[in-house]
Amino acid sequence: MMTNVEHIGIAVSDLLGAETLYAALLGAAPYKREEVESEQVLTSFFKVNQTKIELLQATGPDSAIARFIAKKGEGIHHIAFEVDDILAEMDRLRNAGFTLLNESPKRGADNKLVCFVHPKSAYGVLIELCQEIR
Amino acid sequence: MMTNVEHIGIAVSDLLGAETLYAALLGAAPYKREEVESEQVLTSFFKVNQTKIELLQATGPDSAIARFIAKKGEGIHHIAFEVDDILAEMDRLRNAGFTLLNESPKRGADNKLVCFVHPKSAYGVLIELCQEIR
Repeated sequence: MMTNVEHIGIAVSDLLGAETLYAALLGAAPYKREEVESEQVLTSFFKVNQTKIELLQATGPDSAIARFIAKKGEGIHHIAFEVDDILAEMDRLRNAGFTLLNESPKRGADNKLVCFVHPKSAYGVLIELCQEIR
Repeated sequence: MMTNVEHIGIAVSDLLGAETLYAALLGAAPYKREEVESEQVLTSFFKVNQTKIELLQATGPDSAIARFIAKKGEGIHHIAFEVDDILAEMDRLRNAGFTLLNESPKRGADNKLVCFVHPKSAYGVLIELCQEIR
């Protein structure tokens, strides 16, 4: 079950500049910066009520963020839904005909297990499932 | 002040098909469908905790949604933040150097006053401010 819009991921070329801009927009500073080496991204997190805004900058040319920006330009990259049981939710979506981008959950930023759903399954939207690692 | 991620807007070409898909993804039916004639859009709303997913289909070729899909394809169109005082927030953002797409609030879907911030002001992201009409 999807219990919350946990975060919205935004692809940016210039993390420091984007942090300054989003701090002005949201009226609050980012509360965390974190590198995810396996994904070649540097991330910065803001919080608005129960939803986070995650800025993502590529740290290498093979990063999915670098490829996204090359193709579509900077902008909203994905929507992440919090789930209570990621394995059960992955099974449910597979059975409903969705294509998952990873066969088992992988470790994401912010102490989460994550799985992505192929955008072709969801009208062009990259969907992430995430579950807090307890 | 931005108090919540009120909704995420997703541009789709085929509202009925997208409704079926998002109902399967989210495990819940849309709770409302609404046409906004001034914006030439037909919308459908889902709710996940305190955030809505708004599917948007153009009803005419001049709709911003039709232009978005022609340029970028289907996908995430905007992020809407709930504000407690839209006029004060518009002033705050203007003073912080953001470009607003409408000079005064206009009526949006779902009983809201809305204002959009130019994507060039926000790293390619179209931001909406919205305030419930009381």
